[in-house]
Amino acid sequence: MKVTVNIVRRPDVADPQGATVARALHDLGHASVRSVRVDRAIHLEVDGDDPEAVRAEVVRMCEELLANPVLEDFEVVVEE
Amino acid sequence: MKVTVNIVRRPDVADPQGATVARALHDLGHASVRSVRVDRAIHLEVDGDDPEAVRAEVVRMCEELLANPVLEDFEVVVEE
Repeated sequence: MKVTVNIVRRPDVADPQGATVARALHDLGHASVRSVRVDRAIHLEVDGDDPEAVRAEVVRMCEELLANPVLEDFEVVVEE
Repeated sequence: MKVTVNIVRRPDVADPQGATVARALHDLGHASVRSVRVDRAIHLEVDGDDPEAVRAEVVRMCEELLANPVLEDFEVVVEE
């Protein structure tokens, strides 16, 4: 099954990479850019037939390795 | 307007970060993981009323700065 994990910084956590990209876009003339946030999307292929079991296993992967629980939230989307 | 840019590696381009994550997940006992790809999702707030004009401007940003045209493809989603 294909699973997408969207990992986003918590709203109150600074995103220096996003701030740098926003500044660079302004320097290139894109004055309409108000803010930029750079997040990660992790796409996995996972063996399994039961979407709920696959989702539960991927949530464990997020807690153990993929996401940083201090700085980040995650969302698991089982696609097929 | 909120705009999401999904930046993905072209299928024929190696993803060493994804391979490392897949190996680490196996080491943690997640044997069902077949493959992992780590991509970027860039969330922008852009001033403007016309979704098509905003989309066109963000496509220019991708071409100029956000994506690496040799290694990556991008998709622009205007959300509101």
